Amino acid sequence: MNETTIEALAKKVMHWCDQLAAISSNPENISRFYLTPEHKRCNELVAQWMQDAGMETWVDAAGNLCGRYEAQNACAKTLLLASHLDSIPNAGAYDGILGVLIAIAAVEQLYKNNIVLPYAIEVIGFGDEEGTRFGSTLLGSRAVAGTWNPDWWTLKDRAGISLQQAFIDFGLARENIHSAARDPEDILAYLEVHIEQGPVLEDENLALGIVTAIAGARRFAIDIKGYAGHAGTVPMAMRKDALVGAALGITLVENIAKEFNVVATVGKIECGPGAVNVIPGHASFTIDIRSGDDQLRDQAFAKIQHELDAICMSRNLTAAWAEIHNAPAVVCADWIQEMQASVLCDMGVKPYKLMSGAGHDAMAMADICDVAMYFVRCKGGVSHHPDESVTEADVALALDALSRTLEKFSQ
Amino acid sequence: MNETTIEALAKKVMHWCDQLAAISSNPENISRFYLTPEHKRCNELVAQWMQDAGMETWVDAAGNLCGRYEAQNACAKTLLLASHLDSIPNAGAYDGILGVLIAIAAVEQLYKNNIVLPYAIEVIGFGDEEGTRFGSTLLGSRAVAGTWNPDWWTLKDRAGISLQQAFIDFGLARENIHSAARDPEDILAYLEVHIEQGPVLEDENLALGIVTAIAGARRFAIDIKGYAGHAGTVPMAMRKDALVGAALGITLVENIAKEFNVVATVGKIECGPGAVNVIPGHASFTIDIRSGDDQLRDQAFAKIQHELDAICMSRNLTAAWAEIHNAPAVVCADWIQEMQASVLCDMGVKPYKLMSGAGHDAMAMADICDVAMYFVRCKGGVSHHPDESVTEADVALALDALSRTLEKFSQ
Repeated sequence: MNETTIEALAKKVMHWCDQLAAISSNPENISRFYLTPEHKRCNELVAQWMQDAGMETWVDAAGNLCGRYEAQNACAKTLLLASHLDSIPNAGAYDGILGVLIAIAAVEQLYKNNIVLPYAIEVIGFGDEEGTRFGSTLLGSRAVAGTWNPDWWTLKDRAGISLQQAFIDFGLARENIHSAARDPEDILAYLEVHIEQGPVLEDENLALGIVTAIAGARRFAIDIKGYAGHAGTVPMAMRKDALVGAALGITLVENIAKEFNVVATVGKIECGPGAVNVIPGHASFTIDIRSGDDQLRDQAFAKIQHELDAICMSRNLTAAWAEIHNAPAVVCADWIQEMQASVLCDMGVKPYKLMSGAGHDAMAMADICDVAMYFVRCKGGVSHHPDESVTEADVALALDALSRTLEKFSQ
Repeated sequence: MNETTIEALAKKVMHWCDQLAAISSNPENISRFYLTPEHKRCNELVAQWMQDAGMETWVDAAGNLCGRYEAQNACAKTLLLASHLDSIPNAGAYDGILGVLIAIAAVEQLYKNNIVLPYAIEVIGFGDEEGTRFGSTLLGSRAVAGTWNPDWWTLKDRAGISLQQAFIDFGLARENIHSAARDPEDILAYLEVHIEQGPVLEDENLALGIVTAIAGARRFAIDIKGYAGHAGTVPMAMRKDALVGAALGITLVENIAKEFNVVATVGKIECGPGAVNVIPGHASFTIDIRSGDDQLRDQAFAKIQHELDAICMSRNLTAAWAEIHNAPAVVCADWIQEMQASVLCDMGVKPYKLMSGAGHDAMAMADICDVAMYFVRCKGGVSHHPDESVTEADVALALDALSRTLEKFSQ
């Protein structure tokens, strides 16, 4: 088998994933964090693979690994193919990584076949997407998008090391950070391959999906106040049970999310006083609500709030709402989605479109260019877990789709 | 005003309550626990009031204060009028106390009017009902009922002092505990006056109520298991959200309790992993269900369990049920309830009957004799709180009712 066939390259990508999985700060699992010795070793190893694929490589001012495959014309624009090389603690082997390595394999295929495109390609392995070390996500892609926030310099990791000090320790300089930012004029588009991290493609029996948007999430903390009382002495009709109010809220969240075709989750709940024989006088819970369509999401949320307020009023409860997070949806560029759909049709694959409920580097990059994403099926929808799993056959299909998309960009 | 009029005695009872409120281990609030120096001071003060009311007094082998008002005939049976003198931490001034002091006032009225009844009266101020110090409730009345459990000797308070050592410190002897037990043959009945600790009488605009039964409570811990997942990537229809299952359980508990006319409460809830952006994979909560009718309570519980199990099955969740408490209801004697109703009718007061959802010393005493209770309205249904409040007018009505009930027992 020719080593540049799709199948051979997919096998190589799987092997690369295994090699990166061994670069971890914890010998028991995969834990690879921003600006650590593991990050440096990872950059060095991946840079070697990039060079073998015909790319010139460097580490940018934010610690991101970059590899450039030149165009026919030195003035041509650049297509960015990227994802991240960092992980959560006790991670799987594919989240982020897979997208970087499939991009390298796609360039390798061009290189080994002596194909030069009318645009340059840069593959970027972002140093931080997960935010594990400093608590703030997307540091790598924010630097590239030129949206680095100076407040971040004083963020500290668990050992008390500031982000600024970590830069110095990694051999970077705070004053250079702006050189990591790309000029939007130079960028053709941003394209990211990533595992789905959800069960939809598996459920649809499809290896690949086209991402329509990265959901915008709003998060709320709701406090319901009623009146605590003795579980034996207060008749049901005279109660102001805050937890029953919260329970009705939780069922509303589910029903209205289904009605509006958004996703909404109550992930935390507490009630007080919190004794088996005391009627709860207060209850608090959170709502996380997401959609690729901000307006739809906001309509769904408004209905949840309206109906829960009405329930509370009818029960002599009060509900206090606090918004704790609000991020707009990022819509993937229609013209690239169309190109992707055309590619999948050419391959005889159903061009299935789905929203990304999780955040990705593409969110940061959307500030400076059009973005698009391919999702790759992952087993059971499991991610952020050592059980994260993709098949070599699916990786081959993703690589094929990416290569064909690169061709389409040439047209 | 004659000092033995009902009104004057009610005023005296209110004043006594204030005096006892000052006997506390905490100068900031009312905290009076079993076998403490405050218990001893309380017994001494109340004993003086008993003696002034014509009673012979002693402290029994369990630390309960007893006062006896003799009958015409030395062989006559004894009517026990009792409640408890201990408190929870940061208590109100009336829970327990009021019933003991109204009983003393009723005897004082007999004594000052030179009335001797065909039966003896013993007023008992139980040393422990709340269980605050040793964690096990009704120690005083269990001793009198002869149902003391030898396992209790090794119970320890927060300072590590065993119940056995506390007996010694109080001047009591473990080996004498059985002498506190009364012979059922000697007892005519047990009658207890107590604040309602709930809002029903206030809602009915009534000062007094006749207790039909002390509810039997069953308590359960329910664990629901589903599957945790990403709040953004798992579509609503593919979720196994354990917290939504629990929320449906909480609303079931309320609906079925109302349907069966029992009281049921979910007082505690937890879910995990417990992050704003993670679908809960497990949720646990408690159910406390009570009724004066054990069969009705059990039917209601069975329906809750059946329906929640069905909900869980339909949602691919599993529910594990553990019973953590089961106490049967104690029914108040019909013949005394009839007597009480007749008394209230004589007074022009509606003979309103209600269940006690809270536990009382009468539960322990029911093991050896017929029991009955009067409930006195308390402001807002508030109890176990410094805001506990009763009016002097209601106390006068309760005293009048108790005195008239003593007359009925003579017939």
